[in-house]
Amino acid sequence: MSDTTGKTITCKAAVAWEAGKPLSIEDIEVAPPKAHEVRIKVLHTGVCHTDAYTLSGSDPEGAFPVVLGHEGAGIVESVGEGVTNVKVGDSVVALYTPECKECKFCKSGKTNLCQKIRVTQGQGVLPDGTSRFKCKGKDLLHFMGCSTFSQYTVVADISVVAVNPEAKPDRTCLLGCGITTGYGAATITANVQKGDNVAVFGAGCVGLSVVQGALERKANKIIVVDINDKKKEWAEKFGATDFVNPTKLPEGTTIVDKLVEMTDGGCDYTFDCTGNVQVMRNALEACHKGWGVSIVIGVAAAGKEISTRPFQLVTGRVWKGAAFGGVKGRSQLPGIVDDYMEGKLKVDDFITHRHPLDKINTAFDDMHAGDCIRAVIEL
Amino acid sequence: MSDTTGKTITCKAAVAWEAGKPLSIEDIEVAPPKAHEVRIKVLHTGVCHTDAYTLSGSDPEGAFPVVLGHEGAGIVESVGEGVTNVKVGDSVVALYTPECKECKFCKSGKTNLCQKIRVTQGQGVLPDGTSRFKCKGKDLLHFMGCSTFSQYTVVADISVVAVNPEAKPDRTCLLGCGITTGYGAATITANVQKGDNVAVFGAGCVGLSVVQGALERKANKIIVVDINDKKKEWAEKFGATDFVNPTKLPEGTTIVDKLVEMTDGGCDYTFDCTGNVQVMRNALEACHKGWGVSIVIGVAAAGKEISTRPFQLVTGRVWKGAAFGGVKGRSQLPGIVDDYMEGKLKVDDFITHRHPLDKINTAFDDMHAGDCIRAVIEL
Repeated sequence: MSDTTGKTITCKAAVAWEAGKPLSIEDIEVAPPKAHEVRIKVLHTGVCHTDAYTLSGSDPEGAFPVVLGHEGAGIVESVGEGVTNVKVGDSVVALYTPECKECKFCKSGKTNLCQKIRVTQGQGVLPDGTSRFKCKGKDLLHFMGCSTFSQYTVVADISVVAVNPEAKPDRTCLLGCGITTGYGAATITANVQKGDNVAVFGAGCVGLSVVQGALERKANKIIVVDINDKKKEWAEKFGATDFVNPTKLPEGTTIVDKLVEMTDGGCDYTFDCTGNVQVMRNALEACHKGWGVSIVIGVAAAGKEISTRPFQLVTGRVWKGAAFGGVKGRSQLPGIVDDYMEGKLKVDDFITHRHPLDKINTAFDDMHAGDCIRAVIEL
Repeated sequence: MSDTTGKTITCKAAVAWEAGKPLSIEDIEVAPPKAHEVRIKVLHTGVCHTDAYTLSGSDPEGAFPVVLGHEGAGIVESVGEGVTNVKVGDSVVALYTPECKECKFCKSGKTNLCQKIRVTQGQGVLPDGTSRFKCKGKDLLHFMGCSTFSQYTVVADISVVAVNPEAKPDRTCLLGCGITTGYGAATITANVQKGDNVAVFGAGCVGLSVVQGALERKANKIIVVDINDKKKEWAEKFGATDFVNPTKLPEGTTIVDKLVEMTDGGCDYTFDCTGNVQVMRNALEACHKGWGVSIVIGVAAAGKEISTRPFQLVTGRVWKGAAFGGVKGRSQLPGIVDDYMEGKLKVDDFITHRHPLDKINTAFDDMHAGDCIRAVIEL
């Protein structure tokens, strides 16, 4: 028990007061955790495109003022009544996809999309309908059940998992979203097998982690598709066998043609890690007739739709998707952290930029610059 | 060996001289089978929407003059050199989806879409690039590798399977397409399990056969959706637990809302048996979040596309399709004929109309009238 237990903590946080404005570093008050809640001292957080998307105002469900951030790791500072899955001092990762192990979804054995606290999480509050954050007398909203852009945060106990304490939090924070999303999509959702041909559209943190998953499974071709030639080196570093820039194909050759040719009929698995709906279509159509599976991972802009001719499906291609790589956070994330510790999964290499909390806006600029894979913030 | 072996046979056939015109009953010449070909005395054939679609001229790949028909059963009259899988006198069903057991597709274990003769089949000729049909001095094209609207036809040996000779050909002909397509989509492609909730859009021969497959698997709810109220009785006869006419829902309630409500969150499996792309979308969106799978079976009109928000897939719904119900004709159709003989699969009940060959145009009219499930032609 620390001496802050049961007390409100005043700490620094990056507050998003309104859409389209930079974050503002403020002193905020973080109330102690109620029953089945956990207060975490956040040590490091990643900055992800989803944070930028909500901050931009494009997310129709985004609400303000809010403490953003969902890729965070730290130490449990205190726990509310009834919390049994973590204890004070545990090294933890916050989970924007919780796992209650009780709801219809968790019990189905078919999905990682726990729905226990979906409604309140979507509303930006904890399961009892209230916020633990205050700034200048106003309540601040929570974000994706995590709000890791604060030195302290409070989350539901089902939204946090203890991991190997020897893993450094500036690395494990990245396992709270992007890396796990890609790695899980390849190894859990797709369940890539030895000898499969795989294409990955978009070589960011998620796409490169799909590459890692495909490599771990001993895929045959692992083709990275990106319009930025600088990503070729990245792709190869993470295990890609081929890199294709679709803007540099010969006149009249589409990316679908190219991939079908390279794989003698199409890919066994393709992954969209761009959020672009035309790319999603290409990814589906580049699948092998009869059995190719395309997995949508990227988040499309509001209102955008995917399309194809139904013949693509009737002739055996499958269109599916994944959130958080199909990974059940409490059951499976500790194993992924162990994979990292055992050298099976690269994490350190993703960190291209580091900033202290008061420079967090720079991290958003980094992300748009193209040479950034992940910026890590130290709180 | 019959006394026609090795000789050209002159017989009656319904010839489609051009798109949009009725079929014409003609005397045609059917050449003897070449190597790896089989000449079948066709006894009965069904008339399917695909025949009507090609005859209408809407099929961009339709070519004329042609002998249509792909749902046929009969007796092997003679075989060409090297044919080992059937012999003279066998009771057989023609297979528009062949099975060579040798190509990449057949060997994959993942699909029934044998590609061995796809190109020539699409061109309306046998694998050696020529036709066995002549009429008034002109070559007639083959259709879907079957051409069952003729008293004799020649098919590739991989496009025919011998079945239980005690099964009557006026029944087994229907297992050459519609019934198997629906039954296989439920039992093979979807692999429906006990307790699953299933919705079937379109209560024709295919849709009602999906219902039979779901019933055989002991599904929980089997909901048939059709805009024709007369189909309610049909749906119940084949094992549906519920019938919904989407045009008669209360104002503001969509068919998706209705199905989600009836199944407490959405269906485990949905099937489009209409070919209507808006219905395909509804079928996907009526699936349960996290794991619901929608299977496109219907053939859409040329150029039509399916669409949805990618969020539907990211949240766990799966969009796939099936041709010939995922059934491998030579390996699996004999077992489906046995299921029929053992009373597990209704076939007789589908036959609402019967005509001799010279009244085959009436069968096309029947199909558009709505009270017809299947018309069987006796050759």
